[in-house]
Amino acid sequence: MKATGIVVEYNPFHNGHFHHVNQAKQLSGADVVVAVMSGQFLQRGEPAFADKWTRTEMALRGGVDLVIELPYVFATAQASEFARGAITLLDALQCESFCFGSEQGEIEPFVNSLELLEANRQAYDRLIQERVQTGISYPKALNDAYLSLTHGLEGFVDLTMPNNILGYHYVEAAHASKSAMRPLTIQRIVAGFHDPLQRGVSIASATGIRNAFFEGESIEQLSAYLPQASIQLLERFHAEQNGFVGWEQLYPLLRFTILREGPTALARFADVTEGIENLIYDAAKQAGDFESFISRVKSKRYTRTRIQRMLTHIFTGYTKQSLTNGQPEYIRLLGMNKAGRNYLHEQKKAIPLPVISRAADLKGAMGQLDIQASALYLQAIGASSLKKEYTTPPIYIGGNSAK
Amino acid sequence: MKATGIVVEYNPFHNGHFHHVNQAKQLSGADVVVAVMSGQFLQRGEPAFADKWTRTEMALRGGVDLVIELPYVFATAQASEFARGAITLLDALQCESFCFGSEQGEIEPFVNSLELLEANRQAYDRLIQERVQTGISYPKALNDAYLSLTHGLEGFVDLTMPNNILGYHYVEAAHASKSAMRPLTIQRIVAGFHDPLQRGVSIASATGIRNAFFEGESIEQLSAYLPQASIQLLERFHAEQNGFVGWEQLYPLLRFTILREGPTALARFADVTEGIENLIYDAAKQAGDFESFISRVKSKRYTRTRIQRMLTHIFTGYTKQSLTNGQPEYIRLLGMNKAGRNYLHEQKKAIPLPVISRAADLKGAMGQLDIQASALYLQAIGASSLKKEYTTPPIYIGGNSAK
Repeated sequence: MKATGIVVEYNPFHNGHFHHVNQAKQLSGADVVVAVMSGQFLQRGEPAFADKWTRTEMALRGGVDLVIELPYVFATAQASEFARGAITLLDALQCESFCFGSEQGEIEPFVNSLELLEANRQAYDRLIQERVQTGISYPKALNDAYLSLTHGLEGFVDLTMPNNILGYHYVEAAHASKSAMRPLTIQRIVAGFHDPLQRGVSIASATGIRNAFFEGESIEQLSAYLPQASIQLLERFHAEQNGFVGWEQLYPLLRFTILREGPTALARFADVTEGIENLIYDAAKQAGDFESFISRVKSKRYTRTRIQRMLTHIFTGYTKQSLTNGQPEYIRLLGMNKAGRNYLHEQKKAIPLPVISRAADLKGAMGQLDIQASALYLQAIGASSLKKEYTTPPIYIGGNSAK
Repeated sequence: MKATGIVVEYNPFHNGHFHHVNQAKQLSGADVVVAVMSGQFLQRGEPAFADKWTRTEMALRGGVDLVIELPYVFATAQASEFARGAITLLDALQCESFCFGSEQGEIEPFVNSLELLEANRQAYDRLIQERVQTGISYPKALNDAYLSLTHGLEGFVDLTMPNNILGYHYVEAAHASKSAMRPLTIQRIVAGFHDPLQRGVSIASATGIRNAFFEGESIEQLSAYLPQASIQLLERFHAEQNGFVGWEQLYPLLRFTILREGPTALARFADVTEGIENLIYDAAKQAGDFESFISRVKSKRYTRTRIQRMLTHIFTGYTKQSLTNGQPEYIRLLGMNKAGRNYLHEQKKAIPLPVISRAADLKGAMGQLDIQASALYLQAIGASSLKKEYTTPPIYIGGNSAK
């Protein structure tokens, strides 16, 4: 059996994701699609809209054959670390290819850009440093440096687009680890990453869908954008948890935690740098809701995403000391269908990492952090479900998937 | 003007307290009653039933002339430290006497016991150590040692009674600091410290009153036990905060904090000793409510009060490192009436500590801890009121107090 790997958050799983899964299978010619999915906290520094089991089941119902968890340390990191963790796991799972959605839509520009930057690494790093020192954000500095090298010529990937950036890092990570996986990309269609919901179009961004929910739209009203299985699963989660999850819902706990730590101690959490701890502390003292809190902290230099990542680490108690630059240490199964199970069985001996089904088998610091982050998320959304992290086995759905 | 000092929690202020204030004035012949009151967290390791301003106003309406705050570090400490902080402050405020309620009801036995223990300090300490090593609780060991010295003879104070214990520590603290204050005591009447509410009797313990509220009795139904002013103020607090405060209400935040810290880090908080951090952590993982949590942690050796004090320090982030064995550094005014204000004005030059009206003027670590504990309490009971700690001036009521 041949597998293609994808890197996902499914926050939530919508029609665009369904399209991506199908395209990945088609383009790669693979028998199974393996997804490495973030757990309860996501790359933009946010708690997941619905818990990881709900999102796993959406993925399986939407055509994914095997879902494994991207450990917290990678799932909440900046793009290069995020990509390194995800690609390492897909490679360990013996995927023959990996396939990502991008604004670019073709793989050659990614490869061209990688070769260009590899060949001009020193000049590139120097240009980035120069730009950073002017006080602009790091992503902006990266892009300025990149444009200085490509001179805006065609044939290179446009690194102002968020999915292109992630995709570039996947390609780079696969190259750096000498992976044999073929890189593939498909064109993202219709809705951009952050686009608001557009009526009369059946694909919308996950951000647009989440915002529509938070602004009071019912799940049913959004049925044009979500597979039927996603709607049912989201309705179940919504009923059980009295709503969906975002920073606004977790703000009372976040605020309590910030005030309790105090400004000096805040500096010890991962990614909290350069005196911003005082700004975070003062904002928490003043702001009664998350939006007014973040608007007091973010700036041209500190983007919302960067701040949110700090907040995620403060929330979960992830300190600089606990930072590891290590490799993924395990493959934690979140769910599979029959084909996924068969694939796993077939590849068992080739997979160089332990395959973990029960949280209790996660022994090291990296796994403990996954458990802790998940338990805190679960407690924050309703104490009754706290045991889930310790007791939920991988989800298995017997039949074949259908929309 | 002559003042007598009292040490109070007023959780809440009831008819028994009203009686105590009047008796203190009468017995001492003082013109004003000065109360040193705990803030948002209390000596038994519990959050206050109602915030400190509500309790201050109840005190003033009930006949107290001046209310100052006992700093957190003393208010949540074991009896000897609690007493040392309170007595030091009353002495600093130039009280001519201090007056406490006790089961004993007469002051001579306290003085006799003090002299006996002072004279046999080494033997006493050795007896305590021997008893502790048998695995019994510290309070029990203290009492066993004490009985070995007094041989159960009359003329000594009965140190099995909670108010006698506190009273003994007041007398001891005043003696140790060579205070000129006269010690006075009045008989506690009718209801014991922890007695359940008894119908047809107009004095009930604060514990009994709180339990009755938590079990669903209305404030109005308890009017036989509370001055009219207390009822009105409790009704106001109840309406503003959607209820009264106890560990059960704060448990989601406490549980989140315990899980977030993890067992190893829990050991760094004040009073958390001897491996109990693992028990606390595991109980938080399992228990969905506070009562089932504490029943998993408490034992013959670790009393409920001792555990609750650990929990208070975990909740407020008060570590062993931040422990100070220092003296009270300031007198923080919570409220006064006209007589209290006059007294303060008259004694101004004699008071050896800074008198603080605004939280912003609390500069040292001891004061910062008071602010932090109060802010966390306020955030826990409803974010809208968080600013109170920083902006509330001392309460002033112009007229004379009446029931």
